[in-house]
Amino acid sequence: MYMHKLTQTVITGHDKAVVQTKAGKVRGAIVEGNYIFRGIKYADAERFHMPHDVEPWEGVKEALVYGYNPPELNTVLAHDEPYVPHYFWPENEHCQYVNIWTKSIDPSAKKPVMVWMHGGGWMGGSSVEIYSYDGENLAEYGDVVVVSLNHRLNVLGYLDLSQYGEEYKNSVNVGLADLVAALKWIHENIENFGGDPGNVTIMGQSGGGSKVLSMLQTPAADGLFHKAIMQSGGARLGFDPNARKTNQEFADKIVANLGLTKETIKEIETVSWYDLSAATIKAIYQCNQEGKGRPSWGPISDGEYFFGNPAEYGWREESKNIPMIVGSNMGEFKCYAAFNLEKSKNALTEEEVDQLLTEELGDKKDAVVEAFKKAYPDHNIIDAIYTDTSMRPSLIQFCKDRAKNTDTPIYEYMFSFESDWDGGVPAWHNAEEPFMFHNARYIESAFVPGESDKLEDAVTSSWLAFAKTGDPNNALIPTWKPVDQDSNIMIFDKTIRSETNFDDELMGAYPPPKPMGFPGSTKMFSVYGADLEI
Amino acid sequence: MYMHKLTQTVITGHDKAVVQTKAGKVRGAIVEGNYIFRGIKYADAERFHMPHDVEPWEGVKEALVYGYNPPELNTVLAHDEPYVPHYFWPENEHCQYVNIWTKSIDPSAKKPVMVWMHGGGWMGGSSVEIYSYDGENLAEYGDVVVVSLNHRLNVLGYLDLSQYGEEYKNSVNVGLADLVAALKWIHENIENFGGDPGNVTIMGQSGGGSKVLSMLQTPAADGLFHKAIMQSGGARLGFDPNARKTNQEFADKIVANLGLTKETIKEIETVSWYDLSAATIKAIYQCNQEGKGRPSWGPISDGEYFFGNPAEYGWREESKNIPMIVGSNMGEFKCYAAFNLEKSKNALTEEEVDQLLTEELGDKKDAVVEAFKKAYPDHNIIDAIYTDTSMRPSLIQFCKDRAKNTDTPIYEYMFSFESDWDGGVPAWHNAEEPFMFHNARYIESAFVPGESDKLEDAVTSSWLAFAKTGDPNNALIPTWKPVDQDSNIMIFDKTIRSETNFDDELMGAYPPPKPMGFPGSTKMFSVYGADLEI
Repeated sequence: MYMHKLTQTVITGHDKAVVQTKAGKVRGAIVEGNYIFRGIKYADAERFHMPHDVEPWEGVKEALVYGYNPPELNTVLAHDEPYVPHYFWPENEHCQYVNIWTKSIDPSAKKPVMVWMHGGGWMGGSSVEIYSYDGENLAEYGDVVVVSLNHRLNVLGYLDLSQYGEEYKNSVNVGLADLVAALKWIHENIENFGGDPGNVTIMGQSGGGSKVLSMLQTPAADGLFHKAIMQSGGARLGFDPNARKTNQEFADKIVANLGLTKETIKEIETVSWYDLSAATIKAIYQCNQEGKGRPSWGPISDGEYFFGNPAEYGWREESKNIPMIVGSNMGEFKCYAAFNLEKSKNALTEEEVDQLLTEELGDKKDAVVEAFKKAYPDHNIIDAIYTDTSMRPSLIQFCKDRAKNTDTPIYEYMFSFESDWDGGVPAWHNAEEPFMFHNARYIESAFVPGESDKLEDAVTSSWLAFAKTGDPNNALIPTWKPVDQDSNIMIFDKTIRSETNFDDELMGAYPPPKPMGFPGSTKMFSVYGADLEI
Repeated sequence: MYMHKLTQTVITGHDKAVVQTKAGKVRGAIVEGNYIFRGIKYADAERFHMPHDVEPWEGVKEALVYGYNPPELNTVLAHDEPYVPHYFWPENEHCQYVNIWTKSIDPSAKKPVMVWMHGGGWMGGSSVEIYSYDGENLAEYGDVVVVSLNHRLNVLGYLDLSQYGEEYKNSVNVGLADLVAALKWIHENIENFGGDPGNVTIMGQSGGGSKVLSMLQTPAADGLFHKAIMQSGGARLGFDPNARKTNQEFADKIVANLGLTKETIKEIETVSWYDLSAATIKAIYQCNQEGKGRPSWGPISDGEYFFGNPAEYGWREESKNIPMIVGSNMGEFKCYAAFNLEKSKNALTEEEVDQLLTEELGDKKDAVVEAFKKAYPDHNIIDAIYTDTSMRPSLIQFCKDRAKNTDTPIYEYMFSFESDWDGGVPAWHNAEEPFMFHNARYIESAFVPGESDKLEDAVTSSWLAFAKTGDPNNALIPTWKPVDQDSNIMIFDKTIRSETNFDDELMGAYPPPKPMGFPGSTKMFSVYGADLEI
């Protein structure tokens, strides 16, 4: 379970799969005809400083092993581990690495390039955090070049020390600058891995969705990518008018916890990671005690390097030509409540269902159930209480806003396929990833005999068509219309269907969302370092 | 590569695969008819104290996810990662967990039980550290119950604080006591997982080999296991007459580094792991600076709880009835030098081979080459410099000593199968594990089309026959005679052959071993926390 691997013939050797990069040669492995390169350093950086090119080297560097993960403030078991299998890896702040999967290392091959930006809310995660991120099958099935990357997170990537001197002017955005550096490395090197630097699609989920969006708002990234896919997150990137002040006050606490001052601030670049993370955790604790805000981690608009959320700062003219796919999953964080039941949600009696619906929805129950049946006619009505009402409305708004402000198509989707896992669970946060990476047959919680194969072909083919041409339409799905003044949407489920404004009534019927008190939340968020027990 | 998984149908659910343990019910998953349980807590313990039974619980606990790994002092990328793929996992000092693979949960099934004790020198590693440790295929192929376990390591398991008070009398052996607690849990619970508590084989590799041996020398473990397999390590367990003094002086440094005294010592149980590990790392650094010894981590004989190495303290009468399999690999740590060449060792010219042999062996070259050809007639003679000369002689001695002192059979093996990896590498430390776990077809560095399948069947069948009856002989290998006054040995290679004293001449021909300066040694040992850059 989880760890089973296909028998594959892997060819490695000192003179096998050798590719010239700008800085030197690397060698990967050849796996059943596919080339895999892991852990190529795309940039170097001193702590709290902007990334720069790596030093050139002589000879051939091995690229057989993933590079270090970005350090997390605290790593615990994620509560979603059984159905979102994780992959952990040693951490080091010098974490600027890319991984590449490709069927060719011929510079004239010019295949579309798809770049994955991982989730974890700018706080945690990595390019390998989740099993379904493995790019081998997407590269194989789609004949594209897949790249995934690590970059700086949390305090290492997004701490505003600008009040301590000009040299820290960008410290709050250096993790974002790593993303740009990775795209620059891809631009300059991907041709030798069979890729087309003129056709790069960036894609990401959750925090990775907001990373994708941030690239559209970062001038330094202009021209380094051409299409964007934003999955289950991103629409609310950086919506905090006090972000800079909050971050600077938080930085002051960390500096004080380390016993440093404006005069000795330089030492913050060399204290051990143990000490820096302990000082950060203590600052989080202090904020909690004082009831004060603390950074949500992530870049902050300075109107120069980074232009923040488009809904707040406007869409940059320079990236209005980027076609997008944007969407979310039916259950997202809401589905976790289903695990707290004593039996499968699909084994509940009619009375039990009615009782749960009443508890959750109160006097809105009838309206919600009626709207739910219209939006999701094939689903069990108990799913009405496991349907995301937090992310979805902001994504609807986001797509319409983009459509209003650009002539470039934006395509919207809903992923609502229910897995058999634990007797049936609505599509959770991350559930679509095995499908767009064409890995559903290797992730047990996604694999449903007779059903998931067909769906993953359709989802992957849509992502691929979009990466190739900017239009996701393909033979395996009905016509997918871009969003206009209406929410035209593709619904990926047992039956794939195209709809317009399919859940407007449903979203309107729900009572105002309660604060998200999902079970296991402490564990879930502490995996990303946001919430730490002291 | 590495992460590919077979499509498997996994059945999970609130009422699926539920098993009653002494403390409460657990539920696992059913994978193609096999039951898998992960992360069952077998004991609880306060820091530096002996383990005790877990509190009973109501309801059903999930056993779908591995439990926490024991904390390492420092985790870096292992230099052997490309051919010994690792699996990392979040860490927590409350790490007493077992994992179980079984084809039946019928209490009357009474299948042989095989318990894996992981390597990592009592310093690092875990029950899941290496991909090949996965027990699913061994349980499936052999129809046995496979158990793997985590226990306390390094400073948490083997710090002698006895000079600080009676309550710390056993602190230097609490990690060993965890092993006993796991065997006790297995003894009391394994029947409900289809296992026979009257037929338990313990097995381990490297540090895990010495864990296996330590169980023979620990009275509390008597009756909890019945057979023992010691792979690539263990023979030199605890050979340090100054171990207790060294450990106590080291403990004094840690206590001082934490700002504690005999009066405040109790606080060492509650300081954060960050602080405790930082104080430990500092103490290692201090020892280095002072040129002083420091603990190699591991249990220390007190003539009461633990009786140390049999060659030093004698074989305990109570465990003389335990049959053993003992062996090592051809290359062990010596093979790593082959990676430093500019091309594959098998692509070297005759002149290059001769030059390397001369450099390594000096005036012993001709004698070694002649003896090597007799011992390994099918191998490239360059392998003479990649042949382990450090572990092998002590294992020969160990087996003869055991044979002389007991009437119970001890079987010796050599694993010398060369993988195709990187153009050919002699059997490294850990190379036999995919074969005895029947996972060679899932570990790319072990998989050699047309060869590895046959060999893994033979190796696994030998381990299984031994676990079932105490005699490893089976239809897939020639007759395997136990060691007597001679080194009767089974050689697992492309051709499996039975020999007597096959490498006595070779071992005698080598010049005295140089200090082990293998490439990448810092990285290798720092993965286990023994060597840390400060």
